[in-house]
Amino acid sequence: MAKIVIAYHSGFGHTKAIAERVHAGAAGVNGVDATLLNVEELPAPGADRSLGGRWGELNAADAIIFGTPTYMGDVSWVFKRFMEYSSGIWFGQGWKDKIAAGFTNSGGLSGDKLQTLHTLMVFANQHSMIWVSTGVTPSIYTGDGKDLNRLSSYSGLMTQADQGPPDKTPPQGDRLSGEAFGARVAQATQRWLAGKA
Amino acid sequence: MAKIVIAYHSGFGHTKAIAERVHAGAAGVNGVDATLLNVEELPAPGADRSLGGRWGELNAADAIIFGTPTYMGDVSWVFKRFMEYSSGIWFGQGWKDKIAAGFTNSGGLSGDKLQTLHTLMVFANQHSMIWVSTGVTPSIYTGDGKDLNRLSSYSGLMTQADQGPPDKTPPQGDRLSGEAFGARVAQATQRWLAGKA
Amino acid sequence: MAKIVIAYHSGFGHTKAIAERVHAGAAGVNGVDATLLNVEELPAPGADRSLGGRWGELNAADAIIFGTPTYMGDVSWVFKRFMEYSSGIWFGQGWKDKIAAGFTNSGGLSGDKLQTLHTLMVFANQHSMIWVSTGVTPSIYTGDGKDLNRLSSYSGLMTQADQGPPDKTPPQGDRLSGEAFGARVAQATQRWLAGKA
Amino acid sequence: MAKIVIAYHSGFGHTKAIAERVHAGAAGVNGVDATLLNVEELPAPGADRSLGGRWGELNAADAIIFGTPTYMGDVSWVFKRFMEYSSGIWFGQGWKDKIAAGFTNSGGLSGDKLQTLHTLMVFANQHSMIWVSTGVTPSIYTGDGKDLNRLSSYSGLMTQADQGPPDKTPPQGDRLSGEAFGARVAQATQRWLAGKA
Repeated sequence: MAKIVIAYHSGFGHTKAIAERVHAGAAGVNGVDATLLNVEELPAPGADRSLGGRWGELNAADAIIFGTPTYMGDVSWVFKRFMEYSSGIWFGQGWKDKIAAGFTNSGGLSGDKLQTLHTLMVFANQHSMIWVSTGVTPSIYTGDGKDLNRLSSYSGLMTQADQGPPDKTPPQGDRLSGEAFGARVAQATQRWLAGKA
Repeated sequence: MAKIVIAYHSGFGHTKAIAERVHAGAAGVNGVDATLLNVEELPAPGADRSLGGRWGELNAADAIIFGTPTYMGDVSWVFKRFMEYSSGIWFGQGWKDKIAAGFTNSGGLSGDKLQTLHTLMVFANQHSMIWVSTGVTPSIYTGDGKDLNRLSSYSGLMTQADQGPPDKTPPQGDRLSGEAFGARVAQATQRWLAGKA
Repeated sequence: MAKIVIAYHSGFGHTKAIAERVHAGAAGVNGVDATLLNVEELPAPGADRSLGGRWGELNAADAIIFGTPTYMGDVSWVFKRFMEYSSGIWFGQGWKDKIAAGFTNSGGLSGDKLQTLHTLMVFANQHSMIWVSTGVTPSIYTGDGKDLNRLSSYSGLMTQADQGPPDKTPPQGDRLSGEAFGARVAQATQRWLAGKA
Repeated sequence: MAKIVIAYHSGFGHTKAIAERVHAGAAGVNGVDATLLNVEELPAPGADRSLGGRWGELNAADAIIFGTPTYMGDVSWVFKRFMEYSSGIWFGQGWKDKIAAGFTNSGGLSGDKLQTLHTLMVFANQHSMIWVSTGVTPSIYTGDGKDLNRLSSYSGLMTQADQGPPDKTPPQGDRLSGEAFGARVAQATQRWLAGKA
């Protein structure tokens, strides 16, 4: 089984709604064990750098998909705190050669979501991970009617929510994009696992 | 008179259409002398680093607004070549303390336009310039009916063109955003000039 | 008087050591009132978005210089939390047209400090501020013996600390760079203030 | 055999010197066929989008390692032109799921090399490639005497050259870092190939 954790933070539920679709897309791939993990639940490292709670799930994962809102032009501070809590793992390079990918949601069509994806890529690279791109040709080029990759993002999944509850927004195309993204990362993880010497 | 040059490259006319609106917005401010300059016209530096053609207009400007399409995730190579042609000016810090700003157009709603704006900011900072932000609250928050700053960009102006000729696309709101952006940079330039000791 | 606030976070004292030099450089310019403000001291906004403590100093400032360590490839989470606490100010565009600049310290010679500066620029641009570049030719080109701008940074000040206490590291050239940076931003602020209609 | 192409541009020979070491590191892994390709040699696409010259080597590769100097804060214009020449391949997603990685050289210790690496990552992501991080703990943490990853870069390899000929600078540690980087990407490519269903 390929173990995939979707490690996300969500302030108002919109990023969570996408995280659930990314999870569904990954879990829908045969042979994949996918788990949702809200990073707010993860405790701070102990004085001896020990990590309790659900940190072990991240350490045991074959892939981690990072998800966060874009707030004031970057990952949320709650997500950034999680990034720093991982610094002991980084020091020991405990996540080296895991698969990584990322997604973000905000209110603007573009806004500064790419800055957030850059932060996630840099973070994954510090952990010596392997970054999987979106892999979906934007709907402006395919006209596929499903509105996949509506915002034309390549480095990770971008979604956009209007003012409104998370069961109404982001729109359906963005949710389907989440499923496709989860499935792509899951398949890449399986391939990467299968190739291990 | 505050001298402002809009230094742009355009492959298919869409970025030029926005450049013209940025120019109109700047030129419409009392006391501003605004000029459009297609960077393709600028000759390479001579072996002695001398700069002919219209380079003198850039060196004499109080502000330079940089504009380029986003192609394959960054400024166009024609624009990048212009950036490198300016390296002799950079070495002598000839543009130090000029005002700078930037805009970019592409086919996606977000795409990688922020990467292009980052490249323009980094370039302006290498020249020790002063960067003026967009300064326009996005239409998703104002609901002003003019669709100003439709894509929610802050570091510079982002516009988006569909497949179609430059007289049809980008849409009217993006063109009005170009005018507002040119006017904002012009006013900032006047203020900066007026404050010179 | 031009009012300048250096709003910083420091984990182990190295960023604070640079913040103090930036403060000294700004305060040393005639007609400048410069203040150090550790963003950890700033309270969260109230339920009615009211801001107590020293938030008023930021709102009254003519320029804000942002400073943060680079941790795990970006601004510290404590600094990011401050950024989000400012979202009510952002919504009302209360910092529009203030001068902004930024600095960061980390253990690597390059590391991901530019990612941190990008985050600070994007943040300042969201607030519709005016960004002042470093303005100092790197020591590799000047050979001035003072080791100014040792790391060749343009978008903001980069400094580097070895393992060691903050009175020993970062080195003297980085501290002098801090002073030069503070003075440059102070002078730009005075010019910008003097030009106000 | 895993086919790896190091696709680089070099202005004065320093980036080429590193490209040669990256090539040596990759070629030194058993079962790897590594090739150096100066992107200046690649012809523009024909009017019918056909690609002659050595473009076929890139299309046949299992991995492409991109290398470019950082000039004026970004990839060289010659490298950017190559990126745009690849837009027909991008349209057909011909490089999808190839392995990618990147390196850059410049005169400053940090400078804006991270901006160049961001451009390369965004470019690889547009091509739906899989990005391999540096994977080498910086020498400031290892004190290994070999000065590997001297500049503490994670997203790709950063090297730094003083004024001087390419046989003297960058220093030996940067060259060894090039070899380690080539070997790491080669091993990741083999694993990725082996896992293909």
